[in-house]
Amino acid sequence: MDRGDIHSQTMPEVASSVWFRAKADVTAPGDLVLLLTDDLKRYVVKLQPRQTLHCHLGIYAHDALIGAPWGGVVQSTLGHSALVLEPSVDDLIRHLRRGTQIIYPKDAAYLVHRMNLRAGCRVIEAGTGSGGLTTALAWAVAPQGRVYSYETRLETHRLARNNLESVDLLPFVELIHGDIEGGFSQQGVDALFLDVRTPWLYLEHVRSALRSGGFFAGLLPTTNQVSELLLHMERGGFVDIAVEELLLRAYKPVPDRLRPDDTMNAHTGFLVFARSMDSQVDSARWHAKERQRYRARLQTKAEISAEEARRAADQAQGGKKYPPLPLPG
Amino acid sequence: MDRGDIHSQTMPEVASSVWFRAKADVTAPGDLVLLLTDDLKRYVVKLQPRQTLHCHLGIYAHDALIGAPWGGVVQSTLGHSALVLEPSVDDLIRHLRRGTQIIYPKDAAYLVHRMNLRAGCRVIEAGTGSGGLTTALAWAVAPQGRVYSYETRLETHRLARNNLESVDLLPFVELIHGDIEGGFSQQGVDALFLDVRTPWLYLEHVRSALRSGGFFAGLLPTTNQVSELLLHMERGGFVDIAVEELLLRAYKPVPDRLRPDDTMNAHTGFLVFARSMDSQVDSARWHAKERQRYRARLQTKAEISAEEARRAADQAQGGKKYPPLPLPG
Amino acid sequence: MDRGDIHSQTMPEVASSVWFRAKADVTAPGDLVLLLTDDLKRYVVKLQPRQTLHCHLGIYAHDALIGAPWGGVVQSTLGHSALVLEPSVDDLIRHLRRGTQIIYPKDAAYLVHRMNLRAGCRVIEAGTGSGGLTTALAWAVAPQGRVYSYETRLETHRLARNNLESVDLLPFVELIHGDIEGGFSQQGVDALFLDVRTPWLYLEHVRSALRSGGFFAGLLPTTNQVSELLLHMERGGFVDIAVEELLLRAYKPVPDRLRPDDTMNAHTGFLVFARSMDSQVDSARWHAKERQRYRARLQTKAEISAEEARRAADQAQGGKKYPPLPLPG
Amino acid sequence: MDRGDIHSQTMPEVASSVWFRAKADVTAPGDLVLLLTDDLKRYVVKLQPRQTLHCHLGIYAHDALIGAPWGGVVQSTLGHSALVLEPSVDDLIRHLRRGTQIIYPKDAAYLVHRMNLRAGCRVIEAGTGSGGLTTALAWAVAPQGRVYSYETRLETHRLARNNLESVDLLPFVELIHGDIEGGFSQQGVDALFLDVRTPWLYLEHVRSALRSGGFFAGLLPTTNQVSELLLHMERGGFVDIAVEELLLRAYKPVPDRLRPDDTMNAHTGFLVFARSMDSQVDSARWHAKERQRYRARLQTKAEISAEEARRAADQAQGGKKYPPLPLPG
Repeated sequence: MDRGDIHSQTMPEVASSVWFRAKADVTAPGDLVLLLTDDLKRYVVKLQPRQTLHCHLGIYAHDALIGAPWGGVVQSTLGHSALVLEPSVDDLIRHLRRGTQIIYPKDAAYLVHRMNLRAGCRVIEAGTGSGGLTTALAWAVAPQGRVYSYETRLETHRLARNNLESVDLLPFVELIHGDIEGGFSQQGVDALFLDVRTPWLYLEHVRSALRSGGFFAGLLPTTNQVSELLLHMERGGFVDIAVEELLLRAYKPVPDRLRPDDTMNAHTGFLVFARSMDSQVDSARWHAKERQRYRARLQTKAEISAEEARRAADQAQGGKKYPPLPLPG
Repeated sequence: MDRGDIHSQTMPEVASSVWFRAKADVTAPGDLVLLLTDDLKRYVVKLQPRQTLHCHLGIYAHDALIGAPWGGVVQSTLGHSALVLEPSVDDLIRHLRRGTQIIYPKDAAYLVHRMNLRAGCRVIEAGTGSGGLTTALAWAVAPQGRVYSYETRLETHRLARNNLESVDLLPFVELIHGDIEGGFSQQGVDALFLDVRTPWLYLEHVRSALRSGGFFAGLLPTTNQVSELLLHMERGGFVDIAVEELLLRAYKPVPDRLRPDDTMNAHTGFLVFARSMDSQVDSARWHAKERQRYRARLQTKAEISAEEARRAADQAQGGKKYPPLPLPG
Repeated sequence: MDRGDIHSQTMPEVASSVWFRAKADVTAPGDLVLLLTDDLKRYVVKLQPRQTLHCHLGIYAHDALIGAPWGGVVQSTLGHSALVLEPSVDDLIRHLRRGTQIIYPKDAAYLVHRMNLRAGCRVIEAGTGSGGLTTALAWAVAPQGRVYSYETRLETHRLARNNLESVDLLPFVELIHGDIEGGFSQQGVDALFLDVRTPWLYLEHVRSALRSGGFFAGLLPTTNQVSELLLHMERGGFVDIAVEELLLRAYKPVPDRLRPDDTMNAHTGFLVFARSMDSQVDSARWHAKERQRYRARLQTKAEISAEEARRAADQAQGGKKYPPLPLPG
Repeated sequence: MDRGDIHSQTMPEVASSVWFRAKADVTAPGDLVLLLTDDLKRYVVKLQPRQTLHCHLGIYAHDALIGAPWGGVVQSTLGHSALVLEPSVDDLIRHLRRGTQIIYPKDAAYLVHRMNLRAGCRVIEAGTGSGGLTTALAWAVAPQGRVYSYETRLETHRLARNNLESVDLLPFVELIHGDIEGGFSQQGVDALFLDVRTPWLYLEHVRSALRSGGFFAGLLPTTNQVSELLLHMERGGFVDIAVEELLLRAYKPVPDRLRPDDTMNAHTGFLVFARSMDSQVDSARWHAKERQRYRARLQTKAEISAEEARRAADQAQGGKKYPPLPLPG
């Protein structure tokens, strides 16, 4: 089976018109709607006749929302106004029921970008978690592409399924309940993302699933994990390795009192990126310059130590005296 | 003309197979290729028979590159190795010839995300510049969507055209040479981005071009501009206003000497986001809470001043004495 | 009265042995002590016979603490251990009763450094607030120097007095209840710090109080205030103007799970620094290069506008045609 | 010898009037002066009759500078103006001739603060390097205190001596040429700072030199070193351990175009702080909560593994079946 076959096989049968239909002027049953209340709370609802949204500002009847103009204002039973807006992908992610830590928008956006995702790509993710990043990945590769997402915990896997269904993105995702110890079922995928505790254990599987030159990314909370992953990656098969971190600073949007928010998320995770290579490529030649310099210095040190040991042994046996050895910088 | 019409009109006639063809195992003429040399320089080239790439490591003949396996290694005339990789969208942006400041990947990725772009979206941009962000926008909305990009400087407009052609994204972009003083030619677009010196002058045009609830974004270098834009936005027509800034911290990818790079880009621009509303909506009700609090405080102050003036005038005419007025916090 | 006189006048009569006595091996009555409980709470207490510290871990009797070795362990009535440590200046600041926002250690440390404070300096501060920065300033200039601190709110002024007394630093501070509208009572001081809402109103007073070349610093929460202050400072009398901001990132101190804290203080204030000059110095010549470039560009623009207006008037009266004017970059 | 003796012994014989004399109105021979030229270059010079400063703006004769008013303006032979200012401690540090990396002001200021230094403290530093931090430490503890600074490289040691002499701070510093493998010659010091490659090798020496409860600080460039140091510190003798990092963001001081500088120093070093304890204190009880939680989790894991092994062995010998074991979170 050649790669072209694999690729064509996986095209979902979702008509692109379903994915991105021309937005009508008014809402219709089945539409996902963001209600932005006048106290700035955000509710994502799927419009269904005879349903209602109960919140602290009263009740909003779906029937009153259906047919409302996009961008229009509706009233709750208690007289509170809310805007009717198309939810953004951020709203969708925030709307998901959470069993686990949700990805941050800044990281989701950058991962999509650095994994080079676009409509039509095939991408693997492990683990699924609540489906937050899955949502962003599906958004990026739909309608022709597909996300394959692995999750070992059955409950979490089911939560993610419900979540993705609730935001209409399930058609673009294949959720797999199972671990990745034995590898991935897909081959020749464009990109692969690992959000697991010990990603370095699965690097062979990663390279088997990715097409040659495919995009790898990982998210890791601690520097120790980053070091461990780098150590295993540079043993072979990965080039263009990068470690990056994004900080988002939000400002109070007040024109005459502009200033940053008091607090911020200082750490969500370290992002590790690389491209997967065939095993016969000597990937060490493309490692970062600092890495190569450090490796050279370690080697010089080792050689000097060996030479010193040899000389010491030599002298111990009555051998000659030597001039001092040069020290590495 | 209803919005559905506008939308269907703009679907480009590019077959999606052209946009995202199943990657063959080996390169072919016309392919865009990233050559990653063994001193870690990056060259993006479009493979053409009988062409050559000259660089400081010798000459790479396109004919030797055509038919090379993706992820494989090729040699220059001087014996230097280079990897043959699919260029990422970052590589494409970095490859553009620059007449102006190029967008940073972190900002491009986040703008795409916050403007909610996906395959099929229609988005306006002004100005085009060298086409860096245009590249990222086209990448996000292709193949069914379209980017409309305005640029006043003829030379820059032409540079962007050549740049977008060189990275195969021109089919998804409509480049317009002209200013936006008179407004935009498009209507009902999903998102609109302004990278101009005085974006506040064009807010009426922005709202005319965006569909109701559409996504607005701006990039501004100074805090004074942010204040000015916020001031104009809150006079009407925009809700869900946010000001954000992204900082990217890169690390040396050396496992046993992990540490941040010595320097970083500390500032690329402030990002302003909002959603466009119909003019009849009283958008002030959905402004940030800090904004509303500050407005209330200013109003109380003004009322107290007015009352104090009234009392002073009263007393000057022999009127009664008053108890002290409460002061706003 | 010459400056030397002013200076010698203000030397406090505190013997330096009181300020920095050789620490004995064990605590004594009157000592300030930090109790670090085994659930990592921090209590600063002044040891006094027959006093007790009540906390959620039981009661610590001062009599049991008096005579304890520095760095030793004491037990509460409920059997909880606590370490007996000398409090750091940070502990002292955190210990103060707060009526207002307390200075952050990172900012306090940097302000002391940038205002060039050392033992013997005389420094003015307005307003006092709870006395947090006052504590850091007194720490830096004691025992020979002195802090003059102004506060308009009587209650806050009294709170600060109690606070400074409780941390044994009152001998080095002169607390003044009053506003600074009419200027400062001191002359020839080495440094002056303003933490007030509208510092630009007091710049003449600042220059009168500072010795020539003295160090000025301000702390401002919003960018609008920074712009306003800069505008007034560059009208004369200040050089070496800088705007800076410090971000502190704390890490979880776990050796095998090292990572940044989840959240951080993203904004405490913008710091503005400058040196005060005599009025006859043309300080504009020492402004930042960006400032000078921008000023030059504005002037060119104004000249072109004036010339265009002149020509237009000329032509309206039947005058000659002109070639186009050059535009500033 | 008791600690009081040690302390009094080390009081330098420098009269405090030499350290902080009342600044006269005009400069005098021997004064350190900052010349701030009108192209914003900074020169620190010690005024000496008949000396000259040659720079790209011409020659400034010391004789013309001597007697100039502080804050006044002088002219070079080419007619360029320069301001005559008292140099700040930052100016002094920047003025030092550099054989090694110089400390950053933000880090120097914060180290002084976190090590609780003030006039009269005794502090040890290793290594000296060019004397940048030594300058800041001497500034903080003068005139009654003293800095003891160790450096192994003779050339660097001599450079530091010349540097400290050139900025008039040598009277407060004892520079020691030698390594710290055998420990420090001082006892009962208030604070101790290590800027060496492998600080964890010297922790016993650190605790011997510091008084009980004394302040320890270290500066480390890599996360691996931080992990290693933390690992050794928590084996005993240190509490109140913290890892922090400071980022300084500078802004262009232009009132109507306020914005951050384009680039910044993204990393100068990780700062590690702790307080030294007597060996009989069980310091693990005062470690960070995250540390204690992680340790507990590891122990539970180990116990479960041991129990599982025991059960497996039991079953292998025909033993009974067990219910599943609880897993740690």
